[in-house]
Amino acid sequence: MERSPLAPAAFPDLPPIAGVRAAVARARYKNWDRCDLTFMALDEGTAVAGVTTKSRCPSPEVEWCRAALPLGRARALVVNAGNSNAFTGHRGRAAVEAIAAKVAGSIGCQPSDVFVASTGVIGVPLPIDKAEAGIDAVLAAPQASWEDAAATIMTTDTFPKAAAASAIVDGRPVTLVGIIKGSGMIAPDMATMLGFIFTDAAIEPAFLQKMLEEANGTSFSCITVDGDTSTSDTVLTFATGKAGNAPLASFDDAGADAFQAALTDLCTRLAHLVVRDGEGASKFIEIGVEGAVSDESARTIALSIANSPLVKTAIAGEDANWGRVVMAVGKAGEPAERDSLSIRFGTTQVARNGLAVEGYDEAPVAAHLKGREILIGVELGLGEGRATVWTCDLTHGYISINADYRS
Amino acid sequence: MERSPLAPAAFPDLPPIAGVRAAVARARYKNWDRCDLTFMALDEGTAVAGVTTKSRCPSPEVEWCRAALPLGRARALVVNAGNSNAFTGHRGRAAVEAIAAKVAGSIGCQPSDVFVASTGVIGVPLPIDKAEAGIDAVLAAPQASWEDAAATIMTTDTFPKAAAASAIVDGRPVTLVGIIKGSGMIAPDMATMLGFIFTDAAIEPAFLQKMLEEANGTSFSCITVDGDTSTSDTVLTFATGKAGNAPLASFDDAGADAFQAALTDLCTRLAHLVVRDGEGASKFIEIGVEGAVSDESARTIALSIANSPLVKTAIAGEDANWGRVVMAVGKAGEPAERDSLSIRFGTTQVARNGLAVEGYDEAPVAAHLKGREILIGVELGLGEGRATVWTCDLTHGYISINADYRS
Repeated sequence: MERSPLAPAAFPDLPPIAGVRAAVARARYKNWDRCDLTFMALDEGTAVAGVTTKSRCPSPEVEWCRAALPLGRARALVVNAGNSNAFTGHRGRAAVEAIAAKVAGSIGCQPSDVFVASTGVIGVPLPIDKAEAGIDAVLAAPQASWEDAAATIMTTDTFPKAAAASAIVDGRPVTLVGIIKGSGMIAPDMATMLGFIFTDAAIEPAFLQKMLEEANGTSFSCITVDGDTSTSDTVLTFATGKAGNAPLASFDDAGADAFQAALTDLCTRLAHLVVRDGEGASKFIEIGVEGAVSDESARTIALSIANSPLVKTAIAGEDANWGRVVMAVGKAGEPAERDSLSIRFGTTQVARNGLAVEGYDEAPVAAHLKGREILIGVELGLGEGRATVWTCDLTHGYISINADYRS
Repeated sequence: MERSPLAPAAFPDLPPIAGVRAAVARARYKNWDRCDLTFMALDEGTAVAGVTTKSRCPSPEVEWCRAALPLGRARALVVNAGNSNAFTGHRGRAAVEAIAAKVAGSIGCQPSDVFVASTGVIGVPLPIDKAEAGIDAVLAAPQASWEDAAATIMTTDTFPKAAAASAIVDGRPVTLVGIIKGSGMIAPDMATMLGFIFTDAAIEPAFLQKMLEEANGTSFSCITVDGDTSTSDTVLTFATGKAGNAPLASFDDAGADAFQAALTDLCTRLAHLVVRDGEGASKFIEIGVEGAVSDESARTIALSIANSPLVKTAIAGEDANWGRVVMAVGKAGEPAERDSLSIRFGTTQVARNGLAVEGYDEAPVAAHLKGREILIGVELGLGEGRATVWTCDLTHGYISINADYRS
């Protein structure tokens, strides 16, 4: 698969995170010759928080993480690529339990300290023998780079995705690094694809959970590629505490706001990377909705626009078809008044107060739509609610990836 | 545009409906040389019922029909093709008022007896001069056939769509004929595209409304092409009473059940014709969901499957990818239990009780998926709720129609 035209020029330089060590190995979950098992060792005392898919048919990995998250502590993360292990009944559950037990026995921790995530085909139980051999290999493997780890969790992704952020907490610099994968089946419902964030900050698990949910609400929950929500969406955040700050426990603590800002920024950049690798994507689209009755209403309307195949194909065709934006606003089911609705492409107002702007200058609109970064602005004129979401266009590439050959 | 491969072989033979007379004319709403204005004259005493889009940004035609429907009486229907007149502010409203006033003055009725529907591009006010000249022409035109009328309301449709049904009411045979248009922007939300049904039965308007809503619930509300809901969706039903039966006023009246069955059957066949002309469609897909906690829950799940681009592209690729069906069930937000979920393609069970059926015979599944008529069956194992919805696959044709050239 060719690298997405929306990909960044290069993988970023990323700092190490004290207390986190990566390794990768070949479990050969598919008939391929690449690393597909990622192991992240986490020092004792690491706090964990997570958000998972709202799918009613989640994978056993998601159920495992949900059960372990309330304990708030983590010592290891195992990520399998090539097989999502979803919809595999008791055999799928047995595979997750076997992985957690084997890792716990090897490094000396509780199975509930071991977090597991898998991504790939649905409906095939993860082969326990391959997983166990893969864990043996990865435990003996040398330390891997962030780029190795980000590449090893990929499936149909066309480039490895990672980002870093930093903040000053309690007078000390703390660092965050996140890796993420996702390309299709992207419509996180309060959670998302697979993403893993690591920080050396010291943070109480309950507060880390609160901050992650806050960041998630304006990042992973605001992207869509195809409106299809995965059975395996998982974002986990691990805080090793090695930075030596007094553990953050509430927004009253010095540096908590700074950490929240860094975390939200990191999550947003990771979410954008997923959209930039959307299947078949040729344009990165930001949709801003303002003037809604509430922020949640604005988000619903923005996602209705972002998920509309007619809007997405219009952008692919570089067509300033604002009528399709009106259609998508109208179908969202949220309060909207035709006669107070205004729409812009880029910086050019094309419709205002329910009417086409007569004689607007089409040249800047056409130039904007020929670019790779598209902005659609909607002003509802009803209230103060606002939201921004991100998506990509819908092209022949999406059809080719998903229909032209068997999965 | 080539005729859809899912189109019926020929336009059906349709009986006349006493009290209904069609005519067509060239208003030239677009730069084309075809009839684009349809006029249906309705004898005095005709009852009317209708369902319209739930879009929050409806066209002025929809608002006009909504205001006139409670009066329950109709004398004329005007349908404009090539311009939907949606999102055109006071100029759009003025055009509808001008059409109704001109027709009312010409045939001697109230403006509120004149129903108006328009379909086509959004955002361009319907030119009043062209509409008025078109009405002059159509009032002088000879009687047109059902096929002429069905063809004149088309926009991107690739074939004219109509169907007939009959019932015995009060000892008398009554006849129903419907015409419909629609191809893209199809995801009726309790209503649909443009459809017009005519019958010679005598029916009280309020009861006709009740029967239409009943029929709509399992027909137009159960189809989707692209999940995009139009600003102009309208289905109107006109009952001239010329059959001479005692007017139907409730389900206690003789023949009311038979009429309801005929109306629901007609609406369902019209709805299927729209799906068969879905933009780019190569497969007609029926999705049956059973065992849900309620019929409404079953419909929501079925539409989630029908609207999933990953399911639709899998069918286009003739791929028995039931994992994507699981995904779509899971994202619907309705009660579903992974471990009681079963899925079939055609008559072959491919997953049962949350697990792939081991060693199922792939040959009949592959043969089924190579056909034009695809059946996906989902059993949730939770309750008695059931629903059937219809959609088409998502192909390169859809992208070409909507992205490869400017609208």
